[in-house]
Amino acid sequence: MRVFEVWISGKIRFFEEMESAFAERLEAAHGSRRRLLCVGLDPAIERMPEGVECSPEGIFTFSRAIVEATADWACAFKPQFAYYAAAGALGALQEIIRFIRSHYPDKLVILDSKRGDIGATAERYAQESFEVYGADAVTVNPYMGGDTLEPFLRHPGRGAFCLCKTSNAGSGDLQDLQLAQGGSLFERVAQLASGEWNSLGNCGLVVGATYPEPLAKVRELAPDLPILLPGIGAQGGDLQKALAAGLNSRGTGLLINSSRGILYASSGPDFAEAAGREARRIARAIDERRSA
Amino acid sequence: MRVFEVWISGKIRFFEEMESAFAERLEAAHGSRRRLLCVGLDPAIERMPEGVECSPEGIFTFSRAIVEATADWACAFKPQFAYYAAAGALGALQEIIRFIRSHYPDKLVILDSKRGDIGATAERYAQESFEVYGADAVTVNPYMGGDTLEPFLRHPGRGAFCLCKTSNAGSGDLQDLQLAQGGSLFERVAQLASGEWNSLGNCGLVVGATYPEPLAKVRELAPDLPILLPGIGAQGGDLQKALAAGLNSRGTGLLINSSRGILYASSGPDFAEAAGREARRIARAIDERRSA
Repeated sequence: MRVFEVWISGKIRFFEEMESAFAERLEAAHGSRRRLLCVGLDPAIERMPEGVECSPEGIFTFSRAIVEATADWACAFKPQFAYYAAAGALGALQEIIRFIRSHYPDKLVILDSKRGDIGATAERYAQESFEVYGADAVTVNPYMGGDTLEPFLRHPGRGAFCLCKTSNAGSGDLQDLQLAQGGSLFERVAQLASGEWNSLGNCGLVVGATYPEPLAKVRELAPDLPILLPGIGAQGGDLQKALAAGLNSRGTGLLINSSRGILYASSGPDFAEAAGREARRIARAIDERRSA
Repeated sequence: MRVFEVWISGKIRFFEEMESAFAERLEAAHGSRRRLLCVGLDPAIERMPEGVECSPEGIFTFSRAIVEATADWACAFKPQFAYYAAAGALGALQEIIRFIRSHYPDKLVILDSKRGDIGATAERYAQESFEVYGADAVTVNPYMGGDTLEPFLRHPGRGAFCLCKTSNAGSGDLQDLQLAQGGSLFERVAQLASGEWNSLGNCGLVVGATYPEPLAKVRELAPDLPILLPGIGAQGGDLQKALAAGLNSRGTGLLINSSRGILYASSGPDFAEAAGREARRIARAIDERRSA
């Protein structure tokens, strides 16, 4: 077993030696225009637009068209593992990540799979995410504790965005529970992610735009962490409030995700143009509200 | 989209109508011999025994041999998604589940993927688990709240085992946090899983055998819930203590998982026989200690 592990981690290290630290890669992705938009790739197989097959091949065609149409406005792409998996299209997931990395090497690919498992298994998932799929970052679930995140965080050129206060209605069930030591569970996660879990500086957080006050609290507890922010658009989060609450002192530090609003801007044959227009609209809205 | 969803849920419902409620299926799996052993299928591609190829095909061959050798002593099999995924062997995962369901229809298949995501995405994962892979039950992560578990729990013939107090060393980072309302986070999860999340009676819990006191606490809070218990064997949990703490009033209610101890009982060509012997040894140890 050792031989294989050494070989795998050697292979990952080989690529990492050519990579900068994750924080630098993220700054490069924001670029001089300080792009904050992350385009979520959640291609539901039954919602392929006119002229695109409802098949794994169609999912790749659709994903690639969306990437090409929106890349100018985005700093990152976030393929959602579940949509590719449920459609039996994990090959398309692999291909779209390869496509982004070769055609848009400055954009980050965040594989949204919300992994969390014990050490030996988490290592398999890290291998799957960074090796099989070649993602730059992943989303991870903190419920099982820091030792289950470490296999993702031990690669300094790759990032892990840890669920903190999520955008869904039931997120309060556990995340808002008040702790005896003071503060809520999500605040404790923000502290751990910004402190002891972040020894290589490549840990980020996931906070829903639907909850601007928790977002402000998280930014206070984790002033330097990148925050992946789902929940604007279809989920109804307020962009202006999210920017006010979540930007760091350099006016970046947020990856503002939109998925369905961009992907399904049109269901006609003009879907890619419509997606591009919607991405531009959001990017401009971010710029206006940021400087407001 | 609606049409597809109706079609998919209709398809799942069709199979469910032929199925009993999950609790009955679990009782049937325990059988008259009250079998509690769950055999974990974590086939590391680099650890294939002598005579089995280190390839996706080899992983299937290995998994099938383990299933055949241990089925007499087991009530359930728990394939670990990560091991198949990391090896690019999701086809083998599909095939081994199909093999178990056709050859051992009374055994349960618990797909260990620890899913957790917002509603629309969780639906994809439920579809992946129950439809693409045909599992009887899954493991799920509660951090995002009850609405993210509901897509798994809405199928009365299928089960969802919710992470509660996990077997790893860092599980205390969040799970042991004391709440202002009293009790710890994992106790709150046990309450929710036994109460409001369990309206169809198909929710279970995952508690590590490495923590017998929390296990006793969980059994007290959730007297009727099935508990999936990893952590005996390689992880060092004490079987006798776990049985004393975790059995329900009928002497069942536990699925005692062993993975590596069985899979790698021998690395020679006799691996299957050795796995069978180890499964029998554990099953007998359970029987002796249960009646002690």
